[in-house]
Amino acid sequence: MGGAAGPLSGLHVVDLSTYVAGPSATAVLAQLGADVVRVDPLGGATDTRRLPLAPDGSSLYWSGLNQGKRSIEVDLRSEAGRDVVRTLLAVPGPGHGILVSNAVGQGWLAHEALLAHRPDLIQVHIAGRRDGRPAVDYTVNCEVGLPWLTGPVDSQLPVNHVLPAWDLLTGLHTALAVVAAVRERDSSGSGRIIELALADVAAVTMGQLGFVADVAVNGSARLRDGNYLYGSFGCDFATTDGRRVMVVALTERHWQHLVDLTGTREVVGALEGALHTDFGNEEARYRNRDVLSALLAPWFAARTHAEVVVALEQGQVLWGDYRTLEELVNAPDSPVRSGDLFAETEHPTGASFPVARSALRSRGWGERTPTVPVLGADTDDVLRDWLDLDDSKLAELHAAGALGSS
Amino acid sequence: MGGAAGPLSGLHVVDLSTYVAGPSATAVLAQLGADVVRVDPLGGATDTRRLPLAPDGSSLYWSGLNQGKRSIEVDLRSEAGRDVVRTLLAVPGPGHGILVSNAVGQGWLAHEALLAHRPDLIQVHIAGRRDGRPAVDYTVNCEVGLPWLTGPVDSQLPVNHVLPAWDLLTGLHTALAVVAAVRERDSSGSGRIIELALADVAAVTMGQLGFVADVAVNGSARLRDGNYLYGSFGCDFATTDGRRVMVVALTERHWQHLVDLTGTREVVGALEGALHTDFGNEEARYRNRDVLSALLAPWFAARTHAEVVVALEQGQVLWGDYRTLEELVNAPDSPVRSGDLFAETEHPTGASFPVARSALRSRGWGERTPTVPVLGADTDDVLRDWLDLDDSKLAELHAAGALGSS
Repeated sequence: MGGAAGPLSGLHVVDLSTYVAGPSATAVLAQLGADVVRVDPLGGATDTRRLPLAPDGSSLYWSGLNQGKRSIEVDLRSEAGRDVVRTLLAVPGPGHGILVSNAVGQGWLAHEALLAHRPDLIQVHIAGRRDGRPAVDYTVNCEVGLPWLTGPVDSQLPVNHVLPAWDLLTGLHTALAVVAAVRERDSSGSGRIIELALADVAAVTMGQLGFVADVAVNGSARLRDGNYLYGSFGCDFATTDGRRVMVVALTERHWQHLVDLTGTREVVGALEGALHTDFGNEEARYRNRDVLSALLAPWFAARTHAEVVVALEQGQVLWGDYRTLEELVNAPDSPVRSGDLFAETEHPTGASFPVARSALRSRGWGERTPTVPVLGADTDDVLRDWLDLDDSKLAELHAAGALGSS
Repeated sequence: MGGAAGPLSGLHVVDLSTYVAGPSATAVLAQLGADVVRVDPLGGATDTRRLPLAPDGSSLYWSGLNQGKRSIEVDLRSEAGRDVVRTLLAVPGPGHGILVSNAVGQGWLAHEALLAHRPDLIQVHIAGRRDGRPAVDYTVNCEVGLPWLTGPVDSQLPVNHVLPAWDLLTGLHTALAVVAAVRERDSSGSGRIIELALADVAAVTMGQLGFVADVAVNGSARLRDGNYLYGSFGCDFATTDGRRVMVVALTERHWQHLVDLTGTREVVGALEGALHTDFGNEEARYRNRDVLSALLAPWFAARTHAEVVVALEQGQVLWGDYRTLEELVNAPDSPVRSGDLFAETEHPTGASFPVARSALRSRGWGERTPTVPVLGADTDDVLRDWLDLDDSKLAELHAAGALGSS
């Protein structure tokens, strides 16, 4: 595994992170060719048994987030176990000495303490909040205002998101930090600690998207708006057989295709004349979204889903289909069934399921068939591979209780 | 700007992308020190005037997504204008020759065509779908199943998200692709094209999080679940004065703190005994989330928000506050008011507002004060800076109509 193809081959990452943000970061690094070792305490960290589970009790959550890595189990409370981690970080060479962590209050993982073992260590540390207080995706999301903007217009309650978007974005910032720091170290010879916080990623992103500037400049924010796309025209329509499609007219061309398809040119033109506006302009479409969607809805309501799909494709309308998770996985045209994007992987201890490849497609990248680790199963292999330990030394460490599994 | 500090200083990126994914990628590269030039067609691309707007009509959306970049305006329909872009890509040196694009069907931006001008070009091209068909965040999100899982349990309709999470994740994958490809080119001398699609990022991410494996292995997916956190205990509670807080007990320690705070040890213990379960186990908390939240709710409902906040902090409970966007920006403890995370930037043509720094904190990184471009205002500067053009050559290009603004 240490020699996999990809732009990050030659990098060796020690992953002491848990839950979503850190593990998703190192999973992406592994997809791009890095050799990633996830280190768990004996018995597994607190995220090891999270739902959903396979029938054999193994965590499909843990499997997905740790795909492409090797798993080792170490007694992180003992000095002997901690020495194993420090020694893994101290392996010579420009591709080693990389740590991703998110443990709170663990002094032995403090950057200053680790520098004694690896002076050019690169460490990315993920916190909940920048002052060290804990936070998770759900406690961060409510603070940036989005749950009051999500859901039906007449809803009186906040609506949480289901996708842990802040975790995932923090993960990709983490992966970017690792690669940027490696590039810097390759030329300067110096490592560094990079810190980031889930709450900061959320706030900064809200700034990037104009949410913050809108309030700062205009004094108030956009309002809750149901399933409408903000700032242009986009909404969902029901078909006669009870399915729904999302239709978007982001550009004038998209809009004209939609008007043509639905045969509403005359009525839309009359409305434009009466309102002295031009729906070729996205702001005009947005301001009049309720009347426009009401004008378009009957066309959809009079057709079956199958008829609508054919017509939307032929009419070059920008649209998407509302699917269930089951349909995402099982539809004949499911991306999950595409061998380019997912590989069917035999889990070593149980069920077989599709495991994702990198979304980045480039010749020679991502050719590694993704694998799923078993907790602790690679402990001896990694120590042989990275540290050149022989059987007697491994037996000694096992006897001392420093290592688990394998 | 070409010499800004940060791990990506020395990189020069030509940004021909629009909307959210590509621009957010290059904004992050700029935050880390890259010199990014956003290229717009004369008058600006179709995303130039998107809502929200400042009172002067400038787009706060465009400003946020293009922060830290310079803006040039080029007639992209003329050969003279296209030559300007090709020449910018052909500037010698290992930090040049980097392009981010997402235009559909523009043959002159095809990787093969550009290689004649820069044989080691790095190009990251973002598509909606991998087969080239268009898609945007909202038409991708509905296809991965999340809108049927979002919102109140009794809702009969899908609920779209408001955060363009797939755009943002695609953007960070793009930024990662750029830096990974640069590292590879630094050692191999070879450039490459990397392609990614919004729809693929969404599918792969659903795989990483275990959603796909859950259906593949167990035959069905989790159900719509309101504001509950999946797989452990987390939900929102109302205070007596009508505010809401999100409370999460991810670990056993979190749970014990919450039980202690709310004085529910006895009743929770009786329930555990009667149900033969142990709420120290996260799966047990999740399975019994309705009864547990009902047991805890009266404690919150009997207290004001101010009382609840003090008690949650003192009790070391993991929680977050439901805030509006206005509160995110204007609260006394707002991250937006932290000089470390945002800088108040005077927009050259209008309003002043807070602009985000990088979420990655490390000594010497992100010290650049973020700036906001004005469409086309840097055209001459960039051409002088990157191409060493003198005034007469610039005047010639302006006279030929190849350039806009400045």
